[in-house]
Amino acid sequence: MPSRSADDDPRLGDVSEGTILRAILARTAPSSHTILGPGDDAAVIRTPSGSVVATTDTLVHGPDFRLAWSGGYDLGWKSAAVNLADIAAMGARPTALLVALAVPRDLRLSFVERLADGLREACEALAPGCAVVGGDLTVSDVLTVAVTALGDLEGRDAVTRAGARPGDVVAVAGELGHAAHGLAVLFGRFRDGDTPVAVDPARLETGERAALAAQLRPAPPIGLGVMASVAGATSMMDISDGLALDAGRLATASDVTLELSRASLGDNPERALAGGEDHALLATFPPDVLPSGFRVIGTVRARGKDGVLVDGAAVSIDGWDPYRDWDSTAG
Amino acid sequence: MPSRSADDDPRLGDVSEGTILRAILARTAPSSHTILGPGDDAAVIRTPSGSVVATTDTLVHGPDFRLAWSGGYDLGWKSAAVNLADIAAMGARPTALLVALAVPRDLRLSFVERLADGLREACEALAPGCAVVGGDLTVSDVLTVAVTALGDLEGRDAVTRAGARPGDVVAVAGELGHAAHGLAVLFGRFRDGDTPVAVDPARLETGERAALAAQLRPAPPIGLGVMASVAGATSMMDISDGLALDAGRLATASDVTLELSRASLGDNPERALAGGEDHALLATFPPDVLPSGFRVIGTVRARGKDGVLVDGAAVSIDGWDPYRDWDSTAG
Repeated sequence: MPSRSADDDPRLGDVSEGTILRAILARTAPSSHTILGPGDDAAVIRTPSGSVVATTDTLVHGPDFRLAWSGGYDLGWKSAAVNLADIAAMGARPTALLVALAVPRDLRLSFVERLADGLREACEALAPGCAVVGGDLTVSDVLTVAVTALGDLEGRDAVTRAGARPGDVVAVAGELGHAAHGLAVLFGRFRDGDTPVAVDPARLETGERAALAAQLRPAPPIGLGVMASVAGATSMMDISDGLALDAGRLATASDVTLELSRASLGDNPERALAGGEDHALLATFPPDVLPSGFRVIGTVRARGKDGVLVDGAAVSIDGWDPYRDWDSTAG
Repeated sequence: MPSRSADDDPRLGDVSEGTILRAILARTAPSSHTILGPGDDAAVIRTPSGSVVATTDTLVHGPDFRLAWSGGYDLGWKSAAVNLADIAAMGARPTALLVALAVPRDLRLSFVERLADGLREACEALAPGCAVVGGDLTVSDVLTVAVTALGDLEGRDAVTRAGARPGDVVAVAGELGHAAHGLAVLFGRFRDGDTPVAVDPARLETGERAALAAQLRPAPPIGLGVMASVAGATSMMDISDGLALDAGRLATASDVTLELSRASLGDNPERALAGGEDHALLATFPPDVLPSGFRVIGTVRARGKDGVLVDGAAVSIDGWDPYRDWDSTAG
């Protein structure tokens, strides 16, 4: 991050809305799908195949991130990534983001500049051709980033959660449990009582560094959503609340049971099952199909009593319910 | 509003996310443009003409509304209306809303139910065929409603702010200054020091009642956006920050001067010029064209020193800057 004196870096409450918007817009990139970008009442985005895929996801200071741990760049990146993953999970290609930003007036201008950088670079890295095409800036005591992502199915049907069939394989693409590991590192090591404290990189081992990156700047395999759809995925979703909980949702929507193999879940199967926020893709495929980038973790069976079995046993469905993990907004 | 005992009306922090989502989804209506509605990673909306119009606008408790003055129904209605107006201002027909809701845990379930009712009924009243197709629910100490609206141009070009030409007429559809009058009534009459207090309808005169409705449940002429485009509007925008400020933006984008007539601005021209939040449509038309529902308020001239003149004199551009009107979150 470029260093800048506080004199050069005003608080948002001390500058005009126009100044803030210009700083943000200077950091947006053109989208190859845009007919009309920021600056009018609304944006216009190309949808050559006759439909648009749309999703929205919000990050709120307190329950979803802490400023002591997340910089502006991290927050921008993550707010893009989690929305891109929902578009990918439909088998669609992300085309555009709209960003509704509610900011406290004591926030520094550089923070929203870095947030815009993070949004742009996450799009460039994870979903080339996609960019921020519009947004809204308002004031709030609680920093809130609500992103809406749009995507294009390029003539294909959407891949929903409801199409898994007995005999299909269950597969995932992307990391399982890394983001939760990162959160555990933050909560376990970088806290002073209830107050988050800044991460000291010198105190991190290599594995912890990667886990922290997965938590703060997740890089789900967005392009594999289209690949899975093209290959014939019968169902798909992104894993935002943990594999066990989300696999249960897919099983319910498809009215099947997913039999998973613990040995396929990596070094820490419990964390892979319970940990949220990786935004890996969970999909089912006909038995003879497995696109590159996906790994098999189980099989689809006719619906039994439980939606998800691991090595034949029911798992206690657990996950990322923000109401359960409610916490204060300190830090 | 149906009355309900507190026992039947739990606080959001005491019930599961699923309970809240089911209560909300029970109140959404199908959209005639929807291929896939709520319940999957993303929604899929028809866009037969090959593009989608998209905008986002957020209401934050404190700067944008107060719970002492706005009920859940009002908030849902207004958050839909302000976004529908941005779609209309492009000459597009609204097709779908996505709603990102951040709620304090001490809010009652009935509040979000009424909010969902307000969203649905605003769509039904202002933009038939449009409905909520997706959303996100998260936790925040500050009640925040970020809505994204999508719309369809039905094969027409978007009507931007940039196309006004010397010789065109300047016209508006919808109210000017009523919402600001309503806000003045609230701030002037229903406050105890810095704390908003509930509105007592018995203390309202008829005009005040209408003004309050315009502030809390604005009803901009959404359908006239399409009519204006079909008729040949050369530029258009919605008036969210006051006529003077927004007309100045249109004048700048089009590189013209708008000469307005004070006599055309109703009973209270000052309020019409300065007052925001009516979301009336401001448009320019060739001189021989004026679609029903629009009224002429001026003429487009070649660009002079000022972007907006009223009876030949420059107006001090003033308006609805949330930073300027910053206030606490009491009430």
